[in-house]
Amino acid sequence: MNTFGNKFRVSIFGESHGPVVGVTVDGVLPGIPLKEEDFTEDLSRRKAGALGTTPRIEADAPEILSGVYEGHTTGAPLTIIFRNQNTRPEDYEAFRENPRPGHADFTANLKYGGYNDPRGGGQFSGRLTLGIVAAGVIAKKMMYFAKFNAALKEVGGLADAEKWPEALKAAAADGDSLGGVVECVVDGLPVGLGEPFWDSVESVLSHAVFAIPGVRGIEFGDGFEAARMRGSEHIDLFPEHKCHKDDPDHECCHGEHQEGEEHHCCGRHNRPQPPVTNHAGGVNGGITNGNPVVFRVAFKPTASIAKAGVGGRHDVCFALRTPVIVEAMAAICLVDLAL
Amino acid sequence: MNTFGNKFRVSIFGESHGPVVGVTVDGVLPGIPLKEEDFTEDLSRRKAGALGTTPRIEADAPEILSGVYEGHTTGAPLTIIFRNQNTRPEDYEAFRENPRPGHADFTANLKYGGYNDPRGGGQFSGRLTLGIVAAGVIAKKMMYFAKFNAALKEVGGLADAEKWPEALKAAAADGDSLGGVVECVVDGLPVGLGEPFWDSVESVLSHAVFAIPGVRGIEFGDGFEAARMRGSEHIDLFPEHKCHKDDPDHECCHGEHQEGEEHHCCGRHNRPQPPVTNHAGGVNGGITNGNPVVFRVAFKPTASIAKAGVGGRHDVCFALRTPVIVEAMAAICLVDLAL
Amino acid sequence: MNTFGNKFRVSIFGESHGPVVGVTVDGVLPGIPLKEEDFTEDLSRRKAGALGTTPRIEADAPEILSGVYEGHTTGAPLTIIFRNQNTRPEDYEAFRENPRPGHADFTANLKYGGYNDPRGGGQFSGRLTLGIVAAGVIAKKMMYFAKFNAALKEVGGLADAEKWPEALKAAAADGDSLGGVVECVVDGLPVGLGEPFWDSVESVLSHAVFAIPGVRGIEFGDGFEAARMRGSEHIDLFPEHKCHKDDPDHECCHGEHQEGEEHHCCGRHNRPQPPVTNHAGGVNGGITNGNPVVFRVAFKPTASIAKAGVGGRHDVCFALRTPVIVEAMAAICLVDLAL
Amino acid sequence: MNTFGNKFRVSIFGESHGPVVGVTVDGVLPGIPLKEEDFTEDLSRRKAGALGTTPRIEADAPEILSGVYEGHTTGAPLTIIFRNQNTRPEDYEAFRENPRPGHADFTANLKYGGYNDPRGGGQFSGRLTLGIVAAGVIAKKMMYFAKFNAALKEVGGLADAEKWPEALKAAAADGDSLGGVVECVVDGLPVGLGEPFWDSVESVLSHAVFAIPGVRGIEFGDGFEAARMRGSEHIDLFPEHKCHKDDPDHECCHGEHQEGEEHHCCGRHNRPQPPVTNHAGGVNGGITNGNPVVFRVAFKPTASIAKAGVGGRHDVCFALRTPVIVEAMAAICLVDLAL
Repeated sequence: MNTFGNKFRVSIFGESHGPVVGVTVDGVLPGIPLKEEDFTEDLSRRKAGALGTTPRIEADAPEILSGVYEGHTTGAPLTIIFRNQNTRPEDYEAFRENPRPGHADFTANLKYGGYNDPRGGGQFSGRLTLGIVAAGVIAKKMMYFAKFNAALKEVGGLADAEKWPEALKAAAADGDSLGGVVECVVDGLPVGLGEPFWDSVESVLSHAVFAIPGVRGIEFGDGFEAARMRGSEHIDLFPEHKCHKDDPDHECCHGEHQEGEEHHCCGRHNRPQPPVTNHAGGVNGGITNGNPVVFRVAFKPTASIAKAGVGGRHDVCFALRTPVIVEAMAAICLVDLAL
Repeated sequence: MNTFGNKFRVSIFGESHGPVVGVTVDGVLPGIPLKEEDFTEDLSRRKAGALGTTPRIEADAPEILSGVYEGHTTGAPLTIIFRNQNTRPEDYEAFRENPRPGHADFTANLKYGGYNDPRGGGQFSGRLTLGIVAAGVIAKKMMYFAKFNAALKEVGGLADAEKWPEALKAAAADGDSLGGVVECVVDGLPVGLGEPFWDSVESVLSHAVFAIPGVRGIEFGDGFEAARMRGSEHIDLFPEHKCHKDDPDHECCHGEHQEGEEHHCCGRHNRPQPPVTNHAGGVNGGITNGNPVVFRVAFKPTASIAKAGVGGRHDVCFALRTPVIVEAMAAICLVDLAL
Repeated sequence: MNTFGNKFRVSIFGESHGPVVGVTVDGVLPGIPLKEEDFTEDLSRRKAGALGTTPRIEADAPEILSGVYEGHTTGAPLTIIFRNQNTRPEDYEAFRENPRPGHADFTANLKYGGYNDPRGGGQFSGRLTLGIVAAGVIAKKMMYFAKFNAALKEVGGLADAEKWPEALKAAAADGDSLGGVVECVVDGLPVGLGEPFWDSVESVLSHAVFAIPGVRGIEFGDGFEAARMRGSEHIDLFPEHKCHKDDPDHECCHGEHQEGEEHHCCGRHNRPQPPVTNHAGGVNGGITNGNPVVFRVAFKPTASIAKAGVGGRHDVCFALRTPVIVEAMAAICLVDLAL
Repeated sequence: MNTFGNKFRVSIFGESHGPVVGVTVDGVLPGIPLKEEDFTEDLSRRKAGALGTTPRIEADAPEILSGVYEGHTTGAPLTIIFRNQNTRPEDYEAFRENPRPGHADFTANLKYGGYNDPRGGGQFSGRLTLGIVAAGVIAKKMMYFAKFNAALKEVGGLADAEKWPEALKAAAADGDSLGGVVECVVDGLPVGLGEPFWDSVESVLSHAVFAIPGVRGIEFGDGFEAARMRGSEHIDLFPEHKCHKDDPDHECCHGEHQEGEEHHCCGRHNRPQPPVTNHAGGVNGGITNGNPVVFRVAFKPTASIAKAGVGGRHDVCFALRTPVIVEAMAAICLVDLAL
């Protein structure tokens, strides 16, 4: 099923070379000011055209079909479509018989008995993420108190961004491609988002992030490095403070502490405080602890490479276009948990 | 909500120091032979007692309350409980006022307004994974055609298992703890499990795996390393073969190939073949491709360490007990996708 | 949430006087021939224009945006929109301040804080059932083995259809309106659709049917009359037959019957037979028993009446247009249970 | 799937003659005082023993396995079991080969390939409603502001309750059975419960009510009678009142009304008022309007009758025991919509 979320529900539809790609968002709060220009900034961050990205350029103008009245969301389902214009289905005709390696052509062919739309991967195309970015814009508006910030941290294994242009040119010259790592930081979240066990913050975020085509891994806080640390290095201690009878923020907790006794922050304080370090990435027991949520996502190198005999128009490093998609996914997940 | 899955649905309940922990599995096919002894092997793999694990030992005897009649599953919900016996709630009395770092005490306290069961983490305890292991046993029976194999690959950053005992002893002596990495390989899956976009195999598996307490990261196939590889290194090519008019397995595909023409395997063949390498970890476009599904999970070091002043009975390295849990999660996810 | 179904999932969007109303259907099997003309017959059954229906006439031409490729469904989400053309939003301007009795104006205003689209009821309009009828066409194609037949049985309390035109004219002349009763019969269903308890056939069908605006009641088989019958009148007996050793259809069941012994049909027979009467309406224990599923739906009289001072263009008896909607709901529910 | 609800989720398990029947309720708010005695009153309303009910008497003592700590709900899943004690499985041995008419024996046998538990209907038994009543007790505590009241209105077609004992005795003497009609009234609900279209109050309530074994119909407000009324008879008008500049409850709405102008109540008033009559049964457009929600449920006569050769211990009129179950269902549905 092409739907995600419980209370903020995102459904995508469309195909890469069909008439449209689109998204329906259900669960939008009524009364949010929304106009088509609000999508421009994020959509342009996803756009092609820069060094290392595909020459297929689309206008990507959103058309709001429902859910907005007199410039505000109504609370009804909000459907947005994007017309596909710069299509070249003929590039993809051979894919049914000769499935592209590293793509869904082979698996989709078998799963759908050969009836799937093969043009540009059909519904498996990265172009479907247009709707994700649009839904993310709405989610961010609803999470106005939080700040979402995803950025590329590595290209082709290089952490120094100044070396990326050269690496991209070299890969392109070889008919080859590069991967990358995106880091996302979400600030300003309240304590308490996420559910015990199955719908932990990490579970929900990873579910959404692995929906982005080309993701190979995700890690929170110290991530894989945590498995190599000792508990004393990885642990996030709570701040210590002293109880005072007359200070409403540090009152003597229910008489269980002595006046002036130093102790770790606890849940019943007026102003409970999150841990002082953030090795966990902002989550304890699946629930946000007030620190920034921090995670990293590994994107594989583009599969469609001239070196492997794949035609069509492709990114040398599609990871360049993904930070805004990762951000959108974070907002979609967190607003759903917050509602 | 404490439930996972659509057609094979696993619901957990219970608290670490309450009367029971348990699980209800809905969607079990009728007619599967099942008796309480069938759980013994997997439950014992999860058990404490070995070097590096907690001294809290429980019998962990499953009691089947429903869903089995005359030794076979009936298709009705299957509820299994495990009585908690070796409880010492007094160890945990102080946790509400002094939440343990690295645990859910702080976040649960705030989320549930102080009404959550604080004893041993209550519903946040790793003890809830007993029900997961039990559900995994049933899932594996339903996926009899597949082979699930999870094993510990690293302890405290050491890949050489012979060095683990020493490292565990050293950490214990320091009142400290270690993390680990588990690798899970699932063989024998059919092509076509997983759904496009939101319910990709990786999405569903990562969702479930991050529900296991203490997970910090997950990666598939080449994982984070893929982000540092070129496309030509990461790509999984399909086998080439020749078409022959008279060979039913390699027939001339619909007249589009010449007799004897060499070409890559395609979906319409009688025997479509998966890629010859497996950098992707058995999944393309979110859907299994016939190769083994391979993923790795990073577990943090145990948070409850004497060094940080946390009492109670704990594992030095709880990752030692997790492979069977990871296996169970894989089976739970894949049977749900297969139904 | 504006979505219904688990495996055949119908999501509606749009507003009565916005740019479109539409539907996304997810879970459509791939390979079903589908073109826009396939919707004509059912859409025209829902159309206005006949005696007793509204003078607002729309073209109601479906536009398929996704999920169809080369004339066949692909298995991807199928989105269909209908452009609204004959809109007169000015008719509805006063509804926010003066909510129409018997409509959602009052409740929607309060629920959405005044941000809902008030024009023609916005998302609460009966016009949203266009998408339902379209989804029903697809559902019926997937349930090609069953026959769906809904028809109006009563108008204004009259069972004799020849008296309807006069009654409709009389009500219209009085600025008043009439209700009606629709009966739906579904033939050809296999035994076994429906789930125990929560997702009984009756539960799922009534859930969907009460989504149609203006429904006041639903009953299955003998319905409310059953509450006034004795068990011996209401009960549906199974056919009796004789066991014979050599007749594969009536073999001596596992040696438990004597040769030639007369007994009621049972589940283990080669050809189990449904009950000979159908007071239950084709369902036992929530599960289809092989007899036709029969249910009746009560529609209230149109609320928008000149007599109560409500302007706009309305049906005298909107029940006239509902049989095809009831049929569509039946098909949507039953295909979801069948998948 | 044996689960209902989104935010207040009720899962049932167990079999009539297995070790237990039980229920898990997820989504319970933390901090609600709850002890086992709180269930006594409602459970005893469902109990057998009175005239017209089965001689199978069970203690029906609830055992809380999880979700309660120190006398309060914790917010974790709450599992309650009831041990089956007075079982006589031998009464039911013949049901697999000779399915009882009017029961699920036939359909269940076919659906589960003969592996379903046949004793007393197994999971299809009315005994599963014990868990429903228990969940209803919790739901009512969470809906403390509302008053749920279901009562039997008809037995065997008789509205005069004084005639029921004689009718019950007569039916029993004939080895026959009677049906009944239950009416449920819910007072004190806020405006705004229910969702547009699919999850209308009527949709959700009917879904749950048809899960109760033996229901043949449901109607809201005027119900089926509405189909025979004219619009002017069925319509619920809003109260009229006058606007005054200085009365904060009847202020001149945004300057759109004149001082002293009489008009119908509207959504933007400080104190919007529900309609003055209640033909609709408290719901407009699927959403509660502030009037009592009123619905009636038709129960068929007991199917297990001596006259049709069915042994075992049964109710002459099981409808006698259902009002508390209908009430529970109403509470379960409405708390789920309210959360």
